[in-house]
Amino acid sequence: MAKEKKQVEQITDMEVDFAKWYTDVCTKAELIDYTSTKGMFILRPYGYAIWENIQKELDARFKETGHVNVAMPMLIPESLLQKEKDHVEGFAPECAWVTHGGSEKLEERLCVRPTSETLFCDHWSHIVHSWRDLPLLYNQWCSVLRWEKTSRPFLRHREFLWQEGHTLHATAEEAIAETEQQLETYADLCENVLAMPVVRGQKTDKEKFAGAERTYTIECMMHDRKALQGGTSHYFGDGFAKAFDISYTDKENKLQAPHETSWGLSTRIIGGLIMTHGDNRGLVLPPRIAPTQAVVIPVAMHKEGVLAAAEGLYERLKAAGIRVKIDDSEQSMGWKAAEYEMKGVPLRVEIGPKDMEKEQCCICRRDSGEKVFVPLAELETEVVRLLDEVHNGLYERAAKNLADHTYPAFSLEEAKQIQEEKGGFIKTMWCGELQCELDMKEKAGMTSRCIPFVQEHLADTCPICGKPAKHMIYWGVAY
Amino acid sequence: MAKEKKQVEQITDMEVDFAKWYTDVCTKAELIDYTSTKGMFILRPYGYAIWENIQKELDARFKETGHVNVAMPMLIPESLLQKEKDHVEGFAPECAWVTHGGSEKLEERLCVRPTSETLFCDHWSHIVHSWRDLPLLYNQWCSVLRWEKTSRPFLRHREFLWQEGHTLHATAEEAIAETEQQLETYADLCENVLAMPVVRGQKTDKEKFAGAERTYTIECMMHDRKALQGGTSHYFGDGFAKAFDISYTDKENKLQAPHETSWGLSTRIIGGLIMTHGDNRGLVLPPRIAPTQAVVIPVAMHKEGVLAAAEGLYERLKAAGIRVKIDDSEQSMGWKAAEYEMKGVPLRVEIGPKDMEKEQCCICRRDSGEKVFVPLAELETEVVRLLDEVHNGLYERAAKNLADHTYPAFSLEEAKQIQEEKGGFIKTMWCGELQCELDMKEKAGMTSRCIPFVQEHLADTCPICGKPAKHMIYWGVAY
Repeated sequence: MAKEKKQVEQITDMEVDFAKWYTDVCTKAELIDYTSTKGMFILRPYGYAIWENIQKELDARFKETGHVNVAMPMLIPESLLQKEKDHVEGFAPECAWVTHGGSEKLEERLCVRPTSETLFCDHWSHIVHSWRDLPLLYNQWCSVLRWEKTSRPFLRHREFLWQEGHTLHATAEEAIAETEQQLETYADLCENVLAMPVVRGQKTDKEKFAGAERTYTIECMMHDRKALQGGTSHYFGDGFAKAFDISYTDKENKLQAPHETSWGLSTRIIGGLIMTHGDNRGLVLPPRIAPTQAVVIPVAMHKEGVLAAAEGLYERLKAAGIRVKIDDSEQSMGWKAAEYEMKGVPLRVEIGPKDMEKEQCCICRRDSGEKVFVPLAELETEVVRLLDEVHNGLYERAAKNLADHTYPAFSLEEAKQIQEEKGGFIKTMWCGELQCELDMKEKAGMTSRCIPFVQEHLADTCPICGKPAKHMIYWGVAY
Repeated sequence: MAKEKKQVEQITDMEVDFAKWYTDVCTKAELIDYTSTKGMFILRPYGYAIWENIQKELDARFKETGHVNVAMPMLIPESLLQKEKDHVEGFAPECAWVTHGGSEKLEERLCVRPTSETLFCDHWSHIVHSWRDLPLLYNQWCSVLRWEKTSRPFLRHREFLWQEGHTLHATAEEAIAETEQQLETYADLCENVLAMPVVRGQKTDKEKFAGAERTYTIECMMHDRKALQGGTSHYFGDGFAKAFDISYTDKENKLQAPHETSWGLSTRIIGGLIMTHGDNRGLVLPPRIAPTQAVVIPVAMHKEGVLAAAEGLYERLKAAGIRVKIDDSEQSMGWKAAEYEMKGVPLRVEIGPKDMEKEQCCICRRDSGEKVFVPLAELETEVVRLLDEVHNGLYERAAKNLADHTYPAFSLEEAKQIQEEKGGFIKTMWCGELQCELDMKEKAGMTSRCIPFVQEHLADTCPICGKPAKHMIYWGVAY
């Protein structure tokens, strides 16, 4: 058996250097590793297991609402990418290009998909004929490439894993309802699984997806009060359908152009998860997504009966459907405590000779550090209850952070000052003009996050230009 | 409601043109569609659903035996690919190359992964230090690219979906045991889920994986008696470890090179499934992999109570864990029967007014066409029993095809004649020399399929060169 396998890893305090704290957590919790392919990362088993759990949650929701999965090619001929003008303008600058196959130069270069609207539309142009063929509710789990200049674990990879949903509908109303439904699915995942509160809203024209008529978004606030876009859902109108010559005959036998949507959520959300819940001892995982929800640790393991007692707890929790591990290695208790804190395991269940005498175990919560002694007879119910309590506690703490750091502002100067002094989301009225967005960016360093669905009337005019206000808008500094 | 949505699709008889029959089934059962990216296909919802079920089955088996999933980059720097000499020689001719990112030419071109040994080894060289870090049992679900000249649905795509397992072990014995275990996992999937009998064996040096010391394989026989390689498992020795500078200190604190394996199974197996079980009415799906195991069809749907009765059956089967659909569309009974035959749905459950009077339903088996009347009280047990019976029937029919068309031969001429007249697997003794393999290929058009684990002593000498025989070997014409 191993003696002290490794030292307890040290990480930078988030108050000292938030960016360094973040990459420390990503690497020391063994979520990610750097690779020889610049700008690309490995999702290590522990990091990938989080993504697998997100997949399971989302995929079940997609299927419940009638969506089916498909696999499209990863390469797109340049001519296909160019069919929709706004779309190619948005994506071409960050495409990676395959120019050679084997030893031969290709006649037409192929782009590694940055997103797959063009492929779905090309396929649909073959298979859609009648109103009876609609709606088509498709989704794809895959990776995409965006040739970014800089990279950061989870937040900015040249290749990232995501799902991209693509749907086609007979009417605009149906397509818009789908766009909204899928945004709500993402919000549900964030709030009820990842314990991340979100602001639901619509992107401005400047910030919307290339080729979309509307982009809906959920915006999250990180521990450092910066914004992270959690997932987006796009309504395209019939623009792509027309560009790709997709049409259907309606019930009156007239030719119509169908309406399209797409929506995506990526491994970026794992970065958001880390920066929402983590602390100076490492990762803090919300229980519903944690690969390991509880770890059982025998105390004074070599005393008679302890190991068997710990194994008993492990078996009981496993039988109760808890994702549980047992650590009966020869590492010290200190090492084990630090290890599972770093890995963000929600509950540590400890049992030693004294506990056995009292027919109890000691459960330690990762979120609060709180220890509770639990009668062995109540193990399963208490663990289930504590996992829910941890989820709720994490959600409430994050919701408080969001509420406490969302500030109204009534002038550009005030918005700038609040951002510099406190950070967070700044809400103002807005005239709807691009120029005011550009001014806010240039003078206060903030981009528009969204026009929230839940509007407030803060004033009559846009504080930037003084013209009549159309919406209340959220501003922030984004990842 | 729709009247006759579409005509019953016609497919070519397999006796007329097996290749045409095959592509007809792939497209008309809506498994696949061609794309604008040459050599690449779309897995449509029905085709992808089969792959999802295969994933579920394999992934559970991998996890039960301690494997974890990861995600590696899809691009490999050329210098990394070149680190292991045999490997790069095997794969470089069929690599697709990314040479530009955005508008810039890359300093070093990047290959779209044809397989990921080099990436795994590169990662392991960072994280493996001690015997305590071993074994590493990794798997990845992804797609890979091989720049083939020709393409055929499922059998030969420039991009295909697969899983690639990669493991690292302290000793050769452990690594070989892993290689064997994973081959047996594939055999289990084929036999007990896909109803495909297999021949387990080892590839010759000529046919083994680029860079491997040994390749194990499962070989399947198609309906036209050609061979299909179902899955392979490779033992690499310590060659890759040395090329990538991976080493660990053993318990005596000595530096050692670890031993590596990899193993893969791809969407190609779906092609094998189609060619093993299909018939002239279309696809025949083994029940354990079928996306829809039973479809409930109301007969004389507009008669009182029929639709409600059909819905009742659907709800009961769903509650019993059967993957079930109901078709209450306005299509004719003839259209529905042909549609679900084409799609290979194992059981059709029909109920009409007469059945309701007799408190029964009529279950029609896709494999045999046999109809049985089942008392409603016994619905669930009978459906479960019939699904097992269909599985067993399909397996036995395929096993008979394999047994009936595996022939011993005692000269190259005889082997050639049997292949030309009857097709199938030809078993002969073999000296172990490459030249005899080349002769068999040149003169009889057959490649070696494998040296079966279960050996027979047919003769003392190699029938090709007359030298002493080392093994019994299987020959065939392969997809």
